[in-house]
Amino acid sequence: MDTTEKLEKLKLLLDENQFKKLRSELQEYNEVDISEFIESLSREKALIVFRMLPKDLAAEVFSNLDVAVQEKIIAEITDQELGGILDEMFVDDMVDMLEELPAGVVKRVLKNTDEKTRGTINTFLKYPKDSAGSIMTAEYTNLRANMTVKEAIAYLRKHGADSETLYNCYVIDANRILGGVVSLRTLMLASNETLVSDLLESEVVKIHTSDDKEEAAYLFSRYDYLSLPVVDSEERLVGIITVDDIIDVMAEETTEDFEKMAATFPSGKPYLKTPAWELARNRIVWLTVLMISGIVTGGILSRYEEAFTAIPLLVTFIPMLTNTGGNAGSQSSTLVIRGMVLNEISVRDGLQVLWKEFRVSLVVGLFLAVINFIRLSLSYPGKGSIVLVVSLAIFATVIIAKIVGGILPLVAKVFKADPAIMASPLITTIVDALSLIIYFNLATWILNL
Amino acid sequence: MDTTEKLEKLKLLLDENQFKKLRSELQEYNEVDISEFIESLSREKALIVFRMLPKDLAAEVFSNLDVAVQEKIIAEITDQELGGILDEMFVDDMVDMLEELPAGVVKRVLKNTDEKTRGTINTFLKYPKDSAGSIMTAEYTNLRANMTVKEAIAYLRKHGADSETLYNCYVIDANRILGGVVSLRTLMLASNETLVSDLLESEVVKIHTSDDKEEAAYLFSRYDYLSLPVVDSEERLVGIITVDDIIDVMAEETTEDFEKMAATFPSGKPYLKTPAWELARNRIVWLTVLMISGIVTGGILSRYEEAFTAIPLLVTFIPMLTNTGGNAGSQSSTLVIRGMVLNEISVRDGLQVLWKEFRVSLVVGLFLAVINFIRLSLSYPGKGSIVLVVSLAIFATVIIAKIVGGILPLVAKVFKADPAIMASPLITTIVDALSLIIYFNLATWILNL
Repeated sequence: MDTTEKLEKLKLLLDENQFKKLRSELQEYNEVDISEFIESLSREKALIVFRMLPKDLAAEVFSNLDVAVQEKIIAEITDQELGGILDEMFVDDMVDMLEELPAGVVKRVLKNTDEKTRGTINTFLKYPKDSAGSIMTAEYTNLRANMTVKEAIAYLRKHGADSETLYNCYVIDANRILGGVVSLRTLMLASNETLVSDLLESEVVKIHTSDDKEEAAYLFSRYDYLSLPVVDSEERLVGIITVDDIIDVMAEETTEDFEKMAATFPSGKPYLKTPAWELARNRIVWLTVLMISGIVTGGILSRYEEAFTAIPLLVTFIPMLTNTGGNAGSQSSTLVIRGMVLNEISVRDGLQVLWKEFRVSLVVGLFLAVINFIRLSLSYPGKGSIVLVVSLAIFATVIIAKIVGGILPLVAKVFKADPAIMASPLITTIVDALSLIIYFNLATWILNL
Repeated sequence: MDTTEKLEKLKLLLDENQFKKLRSELQEYNEVDISEFIESLSREKALIVFRMLPKDLAAEVFSNLDVAVQEKIIAEITDQELGGILDEMFVDDMVDMLEELPAGVVKRVLKNTDEKTRGTINTFLKYPKDSAGSIMTAEYTNLRANMTVKEAIAYLRKHGADSETLYNCYVIDANRILGGVVSLRTLMLASNETLVSDLLESEVVKIHTSDDKEEAAYLFSRYDYLSLPVVDSEERLVGIITVDDIIDVMAEETTEDFEKMAATFPSGKPYLKTPAWELARNRIVWLTVLMISGIVTGGILSRYEEAFTAIPLLVTFIPMLTNTGGNAGSQSSTLVIRGMVLNEISVRDGLQVLWKEFRVSLVVGLFLAVINFIRLSLSYPGKGSIVLVVSLAIFATVIIAKIVGGILPLVAKVFKADPAIMASPLITTIVDALSLIIYFNLATWILNL
C-alpha cells in the first residue's frame, strides 16, 4: 500500500464510524502517516482520532503535526492529557513547537511540564536561530567509563527509554566534560568483561551550541554519523543532534540556496502554504533592485543611439547576446556556489577557478561564435561585417561572463557576504553592461560608425 | 583540533619519519580524516601510510578513498593484502569502486573475493544506475520471529560483526519474503522473554530494487529512518540502504538539480576535479540551443524596426524589460521546481499554483510598474507616453513571466520531462519573446507609430 491508499483506508473507517477497527488499524501505522491523516481532518474529527491513540504513539504523532494542528489540539484537550503528551515528547520537538506557538499557548504548555524540563526548554529556546543549539535534544545516553560492557548494556536496557537514541553513548566526567563516545554496535560486538573505557573513541568530533547548524550538517555528511554531541563554550556536553533532524536541516538549507539564487528571500514554509502576499513580499525587493540596475544598461545603450539608428539590425541581436552572457555566467556561478556549499571549493582555490573558467570560456566562446557566424552568414548574406561583430561580441561576452560568474561568489565570501546572493540575476546585470559596451565598441570600430 | 590541524600533525610525523608515533596516532583518527591524509600524499608515501593501518581500519579507509587512489594502491599491494581488505569491505562500497575502476583492475579485484561475494557483486553491478538496487548493501541483519529478545540480542552480539548496521533487524520467511522489522532500540527496551514476533512492525515501508534512489531519499526524509529494506520484484529481501548513503544521494541529487537549472549537464564530479574540456562539453549544448532560440526574439525585434528607428529611446529599455521578465519567471519556476522535488507540489495542484502566481504577479507587477513610472518620469520629463508604455509593458511582463514560470515545470512533469530543465534559461527565452511583442504593440498603439 502506498501512502494515499493507506490514508483512504483510514478515512473510510472514520466515515463509517468503525471506531474500534480504526483504533486497531491506527496502531499498525507509522506516526508520520497518522499525522498526515489527522492534518487532513476537520478540527472535531482530528480530535476524535487523536484521542484514540495510545499514549506513547500519541506523543510521537503530536510531535509530527503541523504547529497549526498542534495548537488546535492543545486548545481542546485537558491539562492532564496535555501533561501526558508532553512527558513523552523529546525536548527538540517541544522547542520546535514552542518557537511557533502564540505566547498564551506557550504559557499553558510550560505550565504542564515538570520543573526540570521547563528549565531545559527555557535554556534551549535561548539558542540563536540556525545554531547547532537550536536543533539539539537533551535526551542523550551517557555511560561511565569504568562500566563493563555487560553493565553498560544492562544500564541501557533499563534506563534507555527516555533517550532519543541509544546508538551512540557518551562518557562525561564529573564536570560534564565530554570524554569520549562509544557506539552501541561496538558495545554489542565486544565481550562482556571489556571495559567501556577500552572501547571509547576519545577524539570525539563535536560541535558548539553557537555554531551554525550548516556546520553540523557538514560534519554528518563527512563522517557518516548517526548523532553528534553538542558542547557549550566550556566543553561541557549539553545535548546531541540526531541524523533525522540533520536531514531536515539539509533540505531547508538547500531550499534556501535555491531561493536566494533565484533572487527571492527564503520563506521557510512550503510553497503552497505561503500566502500570496508573503511570496510577493519575498520576491519584490530583489526584482526592484535589479530593475533599477537597468539604469546602467539603459544608459550604455543610449550612448550608442547613433550606431543603432544607422544600422537598426544591430538591435535585433541584443537579447540573444545578453541572454547568452547571462546563461554562460550563471552556469559558472551556480557550479562554484554549489562547490562552496559542499566545501569542495574555498577562497584559496580562487586562481584555480579563474584558470578553469578561462579555459572553459575559450572553448565554449569559440564554439558559440563559430556556430553564430555560420547561422547569421546564411540568414544575412552580404552583411559579413555585422555578422563578424556579433560573433566577436559573443566570444568576448562568454569569456567575461564565465570569469565574472566564477569569481564573484568567491569575492562575496571574502567580504563575508552570502555567495548565493551573487547568483544569476546580479551577474546578469554586470555581464549585460559589459557585453553591450563590447558589442557597440566592436560595431563602431569594424563598421566605421 | 580541526581537520586541517589534524592532517598537519600527521604530515609532520611522516616527514620526520616518526613511523611508530604516526602508527599509534593513526589509530586515534577517523577513517574519513585518514583517507583525506592519504589522498594528499605521493603514491609512495600513501602506500607506506596505508600499510601501517590495522586490517579493519585499512578496509574502512580504503572504502573512503578516491577511486584513483584506490587504483594506485591496488596496483602496489599483493593479492593477499588485497584479499584481506576486500574481506572486510561492505558490498555497497565494493560496487561503488568497481563501477569506476578499469576492466583489468576489476578482474583482479573479483579474483581476490570469495565465490559468494563475487556472485553478490555481479548481481549488484547489474542494477541500473540511480536505482535503489545500485546503492544498497547486502549485509543486513536478520532475526527469526520465534526468537526471544534475549536470544535475539545474543545472536546479534555473536553474528553482527559483518552487518553494516545492527540498528534495524529484519525478519524473513523461508522464501526470503520480508515479514517485518524491529529496531535494536525496541529489542533493548523489551524484557528478555518477549518474542521478536510480538515486537515486529509488520507494515514495513520498503523499496524495490528498480525504484529510483530519489524515491528512497524521500522515504528516509519522510519517516526518519536509519535504514530501509530493498526487495526484488517478488518481494524477497535482497538488501538494505543505510542513511549515510542516502545523505550522499541527497547531496548528489541537489547538485544535479542546480546543474540542470543552470542549463548544464550534470558532471557527477566535484568542480575542481572536473577537467575544463568536460565542463565545456556539459555547458555547450544548452548554451547553443538557447543562443539559436535567439532567432525568435531577433525575428520579433526586426518586425518593429520602424518603431525603434522612429523612437530610438525605446531600445534602451529592452534589457531592463527582458531581464525583469526573466528574473520574475525564474523566481516562480525555481520555487515550484523545488516544491516538486520535496513532494510538496504535484501536478494536481496546477490550478492552485496558477492562482497563487497570478495574485503574486499582480502585486509584484503593479509595484514594479509604479516604481518604474516614477523613476522614468523623473529621468525623462516630457516623455510621459513612452514612460507609460514601458511601465505597462513591465506590468504585463511580470504577470506573463510568473504564470509561465509557475506552470511550465508542471507541464514538463505531465509530459514526463524533467521539470528542472524547464528552469530559468528556457523560461527566459519564452518570456523575452512575449514581453517584446507586448512592449512594441503597446508602443505602436499608444505612440501611434
